Amino acid sequence: MKTIKAAIVGYGNIGRHALEALEAAPDMECVGIVRRNPSKEGFPELEPYKVVSDIAELGEVDVAILATPSRAAGENARKYLSLGINTVDSFDIHTGICELRAALSPVAEANDAVSIISAGWDPGTDSIVRALIDGMLPEGTTYTNFGPGRSMGHSVAAASKPGVVKALSMTIPVGKGIHRREVFVELEPGADFAAVEQAIKTDPYFIHDDTTVKAVPSVDAIDTHNHGVCLEREGISGKTPGQKVDFNMRINNPALTAQVLVMAARATLRQSPGCYTMIEIPVIDYLAGDRESLIRRLV
Amino acid sequence: MKTIKAAIVGYGNIGRHALEALEAAPDMECVGIVRRNPSKEGFPELEPYKVVSDIAELGEVDVAILATPSRAAGENARKYLSLGINTVDSFDIHTGICELRAALSPVAEANDAVSIISAGWDPGTDSIVRALIDGMLPEGTTYTNFGPGRSMGHSVAAASKPGVVKALSMTIPVGKGIHRREVFVELEPGADFAAVEQAIKTDPYFIHDDTTVKAVPSVDAIDTHNHGVCLEREGISGKTPGQKVDFNMRINNPALTAQVLVMAARATLRQSPGCYTMIEIPVIDYLAGDRESLIRRLV
Repeated sequence: MKTIKAAIVGYGNIGRHALEALEAAPDMECVGIVRRNPSKEGFPELEPYKVVSDIAELGEVDVAILATPSRAAGENARKYLSLGINTVDSFDIHTGICELRAALSPVAEANDAVSIISAGWDPGTDSIVRALIDGMLPEGTTYTNFGPGRSMGHSVAAASKPGVVKALSMTIPVGKGIHRREVFVELEPGADFAAVEQAIKTDPYFIHDDTTVKAVPSVDAIDTHNHGVCLEREGISGKTPGQKVDFNMRINNPALTAQVLVMAARATLRQSPGCYTMIEIPVIDYLAGDRESLIRRLV
Repeated sequence: MKTIKAAIVGYGNIGRHALEALEAAPDMECVGIVRRNPSKEGFPELEPYKVVSDIAELGEVDVAILATPSRAAGENARKYLSLGINTVDSFDIHTGICELRAALSPVAEANDAVSIISAGWDPGTDSIVRALIDGMLPEGTTYTNFGPGRSMGHSVAAASKPGVVKALSMTIPVGKGIHRREVFVELEPGADFAAVEQAIKTDPYFIHDDTTVKAVPSVDAIDTHNHGVCLEREGISGKTPGQKVDFNMRINNPALTAQVLVMAARATLRQSPGCYTMIEIPVIDYLAGDRESLIRRLV
């Protein structure tokens, strides 16, 4: 059987984990990594791989795994789709998903390619669970409780304050979709903690949440990359109330995000041209192996 | 927008709940009920509906919801598919699913119809969750822990013993996919409890499980129709171990089964001709409403 040829675009935390997920996948291979600076320095695991600045140097590529920041997802996807290469990304700005899908759909269709967007764990696999439990209990309320775990966006916002070297913003679930923020900051010598605390607490990212700020000697020493979520829904099936469902995870965040990107990369090869979110794809298409064995094992 | 015209075949516990789910669905209508004896007697809720013995009397029908026993699913599905009517069933014999799918696929294709089989909660929505978490943590073990709740097959087996009027077999999860059976029996006057207990414990349904049998004055008085499940998986994403996911439900069993049948009935209208299990259908296809609103609300 032909293996799926995947390229990784970007080699930060997600890119490194995507390489591990590709190495572990029985039906896929990494044909190379695309980086602005095509260097392997500091990454001994890249020794067997081509590292290039232009994907054209990699020959045939079925799918590009975009391990780049969310704000670059649209531009990168457009570029590779225009070359007829499928793309997956983990674009995580919930309010921009429909617009990104609408923008990429015609590009994908015109180039006979497939794009799966927002393929992480939220948005992503959580979206599939949210859609499923919405159908099972059509009247009701779903709460998405994140954490405890690191929020990327909040950490970046906290780190941007004057006097802060590094920051880690933990999301702590209080229940029913409400979250508390616990921010750890590594300060520059002589920085005014009270001013930093004030700047963080009044930032739009934090102003609506109960937020505490603590100075620590090292942020790296306390960042575990662990994260979690609890999706819960209580509602009515037909006319029967009191139905309850919940879905919980404790996971390493970049490892799961990268694994989901690889699942989606596989699924791109099984769709008609176009741009999709994860809830628009049959779950079986994300999995390695032949259809009948999967049905026998999992249904 | 045109509503989906559904007929319910069979009017037991699942059929009654399917009618409630159709009445609650904004995009579907029940065009009638097919029963061997086409009577409304004892069912005042059927007053506004046609009850017939032959589906042809109902005029245009998009989909037949088969609320009949699992062993009749194949024969019934074949019959309606041959008329060009889509079908859904909740066939729950895990070992026979691939065979049923293979048998119905050519019938569905030849008649330009769609069949979705094993559309309950297990097999069914649990299968979707099992497939999803299998992809997220490709190496690992999934345990499906049922209950506490009534097992239909075990209850029927216990009720078949001489001296038993009615029986209720509760499935009690012990953990890691192991279950204990708690059987409640309503006895005929003068029945020998010890003989009944012995007959149940040595039945193939019970012989491998830790089983207790209790005589009660009324089985109906203790049967709540509540059931539950805990799906749990621990495994590896990429090369990162220790990833943990679980999915839990406490539900009224026939109400959820019927709701899932109605979700699947809706989805039949959105597939190419053929026979499918639930993991082969995009989750969004199970939901009422337009695609973009669903993506905006759930992704």
